[in-house]
Amino acid sequence: VTTAKNAIYAQSGGVTAVINASAAGVLTTARRYPEQIGRLLAAVDGITGLLHEELLDLYAQPEGLLDSLHYTPSAAFGSCRHKLPKLGTSEADAVYERLLAVFKAHNVGYFFYNGGGDSQDTANKIAEFSHTYGYPIVCMGIPKTIDNDLECTDNSPGFASVAKYVATATLEAGFDVAAMARTSTKVFIMEVMGRHAGFIAASAGLAHTVAPGLPLVILVPEVTFVEQNFLQRVASMVASHGYCIVVAAEGIKNSAQQFLAAAQQRDAFGHAQLGGVAPMLAALVQQKLGHKVHWAVCDYLQRVARHTASAVDVEQAYAVGAAAVELAMQGQNARMPVIQRLRHSPYTWKIDSVALAEVANREKLLPTTFLQADGFGINASALEYFLPLIQGEAVPPYSQGLPAYVSFPRQLLTKQLPGYR
Amino acid sequence: VTTAKNAIYAQSGGVTAVINASAAGVLTTARRYPEQIGRLLAAVDGITGLLHEELLDLYAQPEGLLDSLHYTPSAAFGSCRHKLPKLGTSEADAVYERLLAVFKAHNVGYFFYNGGGDSQDTANKIAEFSHTYGYPIVCMGIPKTIDNDLECTDNSPGFASVAKYVATATLEAGFDVAAMARTSTKVFIMEVMGRHAGFIAASAGLAHTVAPGLPLVILVPEVTFVEQNFLQRVASMVASHGYCIVVAAEGIKNSAQQFLAAAQQRDAFGHAQLGGVAPMLAALVQQKLGHKVHWAVCDYLQRVARHTASAVDVEQAYAVGAAAVELAMQGQNARMPVIQRLRHSPYTWKIDSVALAEVANREKLLPTTFLQADGFGINASALEYFLPLIQGEAVPPYSQGLPAYVSFPRQLLTKQLPGYR
Repeated sequence: VTTAKNAIYAQSGGVTAVINASAAGVLTTARRYPEQIGRLLAAVDGITGLLHEELLDLYAQPEGLLDSLHYTPSAAFGSCRHKLPKLGTSEADAVYERLLAVFKAHNVGYFFYNGGGDSQDTANKIAEFSHTYGYPIVCMGIPKTIDNDLECTDNSPGFASVAKYVATATLEAGFDVAAMARTSTKVFIMEVMGRHAGFIAASAGLAHTVAPGLPLVILVPEVTFVEQNFLQRVASMVASHGYCIVVAAEGIKNSAQQFLAAAQQRDAFGHAQLGGVAPMLAALVQQKLGHKVHWAVCDYLQRVARHTASAVDVEQAYAVGAAAVELAMQGQNARMPVIQRLRHSPYTWKIDSVALAEVANREKLLPTTFLQADGFGINASALEYFLPLIQGEAVPPYSQGLPAYVSFPRQLLTKQLPGYR
Repeated sequence: VTTAKNAIYAQSGGVTAVINASAAGVLTTARRYPEQIGRLLAAVDGITGLLHEELLDLYAQPEGLLDSLHYTPSAAFGSCRHKLPKLGTSEADAVYERLLAVFKAHNVGYFFYNGGGDSQDTANKIAEFSHTYGYPIVCMGIPKTIDNDLECTDNSPGFASVAKYVATATLEAGFDVAAMARTSTKVFIMEVMGRHAGFIAASAGLAHTVAPGLPLVILVPEVTFVEQNFLQRVASMVASHGYCIVVAAEGIKNSAQQFLAAAQQRDAFGHAQLGGVAPMLAALVQQKLGHKVHWAVCDYLQRVARHTASAVDVEQAYAVGAAAVELAMQGQNARMPVIQRLRHSPYTWKIDSVALAEVANREKLLPTTFLQADGFGINASALEYFLPLIQGEAVPPYSQGLPAYVSFPRQLLTKQLPGYR
């Protein structure tokens, strides 16, 4: 007779280059506690698959497949954008009761939810509801977000690899434009992600560590976009250097606090879906300054670029996954491991933890103390913060000239419950 | 008393991840012939700097700086888009006489011009004019183009690294969309370069070697874009796989042979400047099929992505640079080294050469024999062609988490002539 309960791991929200390394951390650590954790299951497509009782038994998978979690980007078990209703309504009760029914049917006692601020809210709600429902589930959050906007943690796994991608792209594009500016393109505009937080756009400033003279203009959502100031800055860069690189967050806003790129639709969390700041700025520069302009939009390419991931990021993603299991084994509940920086240089860090309620639904912004006075670039404090995060090249294995990423087959456990809805 | 003449090396047209490796090939080989080649000079910004007598003495540069040519992308000495006038007019004569005057002033006997079809035309014109002018210059072309559209060579240095970038990005984006499609984005559209030749877009098909089931739609300029067929193909991919990745060349045209993305301006060669096919297709899919769509535009990022360059590409770029010098030393003139494929697998190749007149101003297109019957993908013949080119990871040295690219300082030789224009 065993008292072991099973555990469920699920991935939520936008994918990253390293979220699967967190899954590997959960898996490796869970295996060390066979008396507490009987099986580790993965929910397919986050909460969506959990509601539909779509589960994989990770302990039943071949080792080679499990190893691929260390180097394959995106969400190995699928992710979703699905916000659970607020507790206390009858509609909400039906949803949470269904989740608990799935947990019961598979003898689940632990739930590890890997996601951003919205997802930590979900994990917290499940912890709360399961307690009142009389089938208490130990719920642990695992931090993940490319935007680096989670509170209470020095940085969020997933962000550092995007920063490395963006800094590398900025550096490479800078070399391109510098070589051609005399007779061709003088301004290059690159759009990166970041609805509200400007960490990703700001990380372009890391390119200055290799190319100190790079004429770079960074536009973050935290600084109001003023057309005249922007054009003046670009014009002065072109005048002094012959060219200019602009890195713009998708979420930059004008003085009326409207997104420059008009929202076209909203996702399940109600976030505006943005895109198209780069072509808008390109047209502006071309029309007002008369320079030849090129533009790029990185979109998904920046967040799953595992081929150029940060080794620090991979290590930290693994560490928060492992720590979540350790916290659960220590009898904690409704908490999330966080990364605490001890020193900038040499960079040292350790894992701490916070209550889910502390991080749920909160959003951290780029500190204004990281910005240059004119708001168009980052300063030494910012570099001190960003630089340690992008260290090390965690190169994936290659096969026939391409990264040997592996797709997880979806061999589902037999369903025990009637279908959902 | 030496009979040695100096040589000038110049870079032309759009930059690539590996063109500087060709410069390294010229440099290393030129040094082996001190009795023929006195000094190796580099013209700044291609023909533009040559006309302005802006020259660097490569033999006077520190070795560490010269080593950086092997791993730094873009054009180390600057490039340009500048088309020389047709021979035979008085305006043209003045330009060519100026070039010859610069050559004379610096005791130049050899000219190595590294570029695409337009540039080979330039090199050919200089060879021709110098002969009639009575100051014959040995002119050698060195192939380079990301579009892979040069005739007479199996492939062009610069292309393979773009192919590796595009295939990697397609693969990574495919993993992203697959993980989220159930509740989020179902169609991802990536715009790549390629005005007339579809080699770059076609190389996305390489992603199938790692992810055979990836639902991929490729749009090349060689296949007329028919809206209805495209939408049907995307709809059927989403129906069968739940999602779809579209890789579109910037130069796709409708049945009236008009570019889908309207031309905004033209470059010095008269080529239309394109961009914006991805957002156009995204709006089409969203409006007509109702799927959530994301899109990316790679633009310059794809052609200078030295961080993910193909080792084969670096090796071949070096080889054609070295071969150009060898040809000159063998007494040849007005020729260009080409890459000849001997076997697909295991891949073997050798360097051959052709007359500049053979490649000047010609453009090779993607063979229709590389396409699937419906035109939306590539077949086994194409994979056989593409796959050997992207083999090997030529990782640059890293410093502080970023590729340690080096900028060439522009310490110009003292000018001997009056200013140009």
